[in-house]
Amino acid sequence: MSMSEHTNPLGDKPIRVALLGCGVVGSSVARMLVESADDLRARIGAPVELVGIAVRRVGKDRSDVPVDPALFTTDAEDLVTRADIVVEVVGGIDPARGLLLKAMESGASVVTANKALLAEDGPTLYAAADAAGVDLYYEAAVAGAIPILRPMRESLAGDDVTKVLGIVNGTTNFVLDKMDTTGAGFEETVAQAQALGYAEADPTADVEGFDAAAKAALLASLAFHTRVKGADVFREGISDVTAADIAAAKAMDHVVKLLAICERTTGQNGTSGVSVRVHPAMIARTHPLASVRDAYNAVFVEASAAGQLMFYGRGAGGDPTALAVLGDLVAVARHIVAGGRGPGESAYADLPILDVGDSVTRYHISLDVEDRPGVLAQVAQAFADTGVSIETVRQHIRTNSSSGEARANLVIVTHAATEAALAATVDALAASEVVAEVVSVMRVEGA
Amino acid sequence: MSMSEHTNPLGDKPIRVALLGCGVVGSSVARMLVESADDLRARIGAPVELVGIAVRRVGKDRSDVPVDPALFTTDAEDLVTRADIVVEVVGGIDPARGLLLKAMESGASVVTANKALLAEDGPTLYAAADAAGVDLYYEAAVAGAIPILRPMRESLAGDDVTKVLGIVNGTTNFVLDKMDTTGAGFEETVAQAQALGYAEADPTADVEGFDAAAKAALLASLAFHTRVKGADVFREGISDVTAADIAAAKAMDHVVKLLAICERTTGQNGTSGVSVRVHPAMIARTHPLASVRDAYNAVFVEASAAGQLMFYGRGAGGDPTALAVLGDLVAVARHIVAGGRGPGESAYADLPILDVGDSVTRYHISLDVEDRPGVLAQVAQAFADTGVSIETVRQHIRTNSSSGEARANLVIVTHAATEAALAATVDALAASEVVAEVVSVMRVEGA
Repeated sequence: MSMSEHTNPLGDKPIRVALLGCGVVGSSVARMLVESADDLRARIGAPVELVGIAVRRVGKDRSDVPVDPALFTTDAEDLVTRADIVVEVVGGIDPARGLLLKAMESGASVVTANKALLAEDGPTLYAAADAAGVDLYYEAAVAGAIPILRPMRESLAGDDVTKVLGIVNGTTNFVLDKMDTTGAGFEETVAQAQALGYAEADPTADVEGFDAAAKAALLASLAFHTRVKGADVFREGISDVTAADIAAAKAMDHVVKLLAICERTTGQNGTSGVSVRVHPAMIARTHPLASVRDAYNAVFVEASAAGQLMFYGRGAGGDPTALAVLGDLVAVARHIVAGGRGPGESAYADLPILDVGDSVTRYHISLDVEDRPGVLAQVAQAFADTGVSIETVRQHIRTNSSSGEARANLVIVTHAATEAALAATVDALAASEVVAEVVSVMRVEGA
Repeated sequence: MSMSEHTNPLGDKPIRVALLGCGVVGSSVARMLVESADDLRARIGAPVELVGIAVRRVGKDRSDVPVDPALFTTDAEDLVTRADIVVEVVGGIDPARGLLLKAMESGASVVTANKALLAEDGPTLYAAADAAGVDLYYEAAVAGAIPILRPMRESLAGDDVTKVLGIVNGTTNFVLDKMDTTGAGFEETVAQAQALGYAEADPTADVEGFDAAAKAALLASLAFHTRVKGADVFREGISDVTAADIAAAKAMDHVVKLLAICERTTGQNGTSGVSVRVHPAMIARTHPLASVRDAYNAVFVEASAAGQLMFYGRGAGGDPTALAVLGDLVAVARHIVAGGRGPGESAYADLPILDVGDSVTRYHISLDVEDRPGVLAQVAQAFADTGVSIETVRQHIRTNSSSGEARANLVIVTHAATEAALAATVDALAASEVVAEVVSVMRVEGA
């Protein structure tokens, strides 16, 4: 790469990089640091020197990582004090937190992919970065190779973001996409995803939405300049999504996605705040998020001046994640060379986080009811009693195969209603003598 | 915005900004500079001072632009020497080129939205920026508010980009989308777009692909580290796209888009190089680009490590474009405060630009033929003679309404073939006695 000269107060003094972790992402980072050394030097204006890789065990065969074996160490505590930039790809809360705090106290900037730690304790890390005058970058923590955090911190920083809709977990998107294309059920599809390596042996963190909730917290914090923790995020996974839900979505030209939703909104009591939630929802097939297939990720942003934006790409994998890490590393290293810093924490808006009961959504409800006159009126009354307004009703007559009784299927889409009102409606419907079964209840997003 | 302190060698010395042009984008930029002054100061670490706005006539009513009327001047030559950053939103080659060169000679960094000038003479501007040690930023020149150039210059800089597919012209996308949804013809739809303000009175620059070609040149230059000028780009507009083409695409679940295609490829003679072209093409409705509706833009990128990425958003309009300008302005101002510079021109790869005759694509061909035995064999022979391999053939029998003769419609999709071979095939088909009409020939992309 031909680059013009940069101001470089350090001359050719190398930027010392310490790497914490050498798993799938870590070994990709190490390999790229070696293979792209000339390119990195040109982009940064100084050479990068890998000073050590902290691992749990030193003896393991790591011949696929093209570095001097002497660089591997189990003494992470010491390693973080010997670097200008500490790259952390270990994950988890501890010992990562203590190591990153120690690194920053020692004057090192931090590049991390650790969404769990940031969603748990981001403000403590930001405070340490501010105190030490160093950078804290974490592009790889959300949506892998997709540059989404940097645009939100930089390009959109002067705009007012009103809503973020994200497909931020590849495993659940893979499962829902396969359920959509094959018609298969949840359990069967998860087993298939496990066989293909798209889901872990214990898929809880993905399918129950914990991973997506941590990412939603990071997105909401940046979008609304407000501290949002993973624990603040309402969370509902996909394990209750049935083949019937998927079929119901298909019938109205929608598709079911696990969405991370961050919204600037006003609660029922008039409080202006933010709603942050992760749950499955139907979106129209014409919506840009509907085209996100397989294990891909995408983040859809609505902002006052910019309008609608979407960022799409691979959300996981060693190389995509390592690339995001390297992008951050170049930005941070250039700040070190030039003597500046990137943006720090921005939490000035400090908006209240609204209760999920206050959040307002449209709902799709599928009911099996008795096929006799007056049933629709009774069902409609249950909605009216609980203050939920109906947008459309569609009725299909069908014959129940086991009993031979005539049944009708009612598909109702509501106008926007609160979670609380909807829950009351569903309770009333379930208790109603004319309703044989509440087949599916699902939120509808992206209108 | 709460920001930590930055290193600031200038103290509170303001960053002087000169604005060239005060049309739709310019007035948005001026308004945002005033309304977001506190925010910009916090993000930059120094205040921004608007020192003048160059316009053609000073007398005009500009009461919607909330600045001191004394700032308006017709003396752009003088204004550019009094600024730290010159923002150019006038467009066109001259006098913009001379003004920006003078600005940089005087030590100012440049932020511009001028795709035509960059595609015509980018290297001269970059050389001036290098000589003066200043920044040249132009995020607003491609795809408005969508942050696409910065990711390509920074986040993806260490990756190998293999292909870029862009919908980079809102007018043509609006026209093609409306043709798809209404079934109307080209002329009629352009008239409708003009009435709605989506197309200019003289729509040539948009519908004939000149605007998209300039943007393709900028994307290809960044993607492949190679100088590509607008004139190097093969260009075919949408004025020959018929309702029959759109219907043919629909029949195979495809959609027609005007694509800017930048591809790292190998020519027929074995030369490794880049192919840069703008033309209408069919893409499958399941492709993420197919969901780009109305006047939206999107850029789809394939890279070795990152995989597939897509950036989607509003491609034009005062506020989205102004926001892109402001994002650049903050980046450049922060470099001034910190004493560094952003990335300069990267043209080290210097790859040959391949002739369009060498570029390889799949084709969709619709033919009206006589409905009698042996016709398909004769048609297939025409393909074989010209070395184009057939992927699928679909035949519909229909009765020609005017003559009453039985006709068949053949829809043929080829395997990848060169432009040159396809042109020979089409000539042979047109001359064949069994072919009544070549209804539609269109490239197929995004497989």
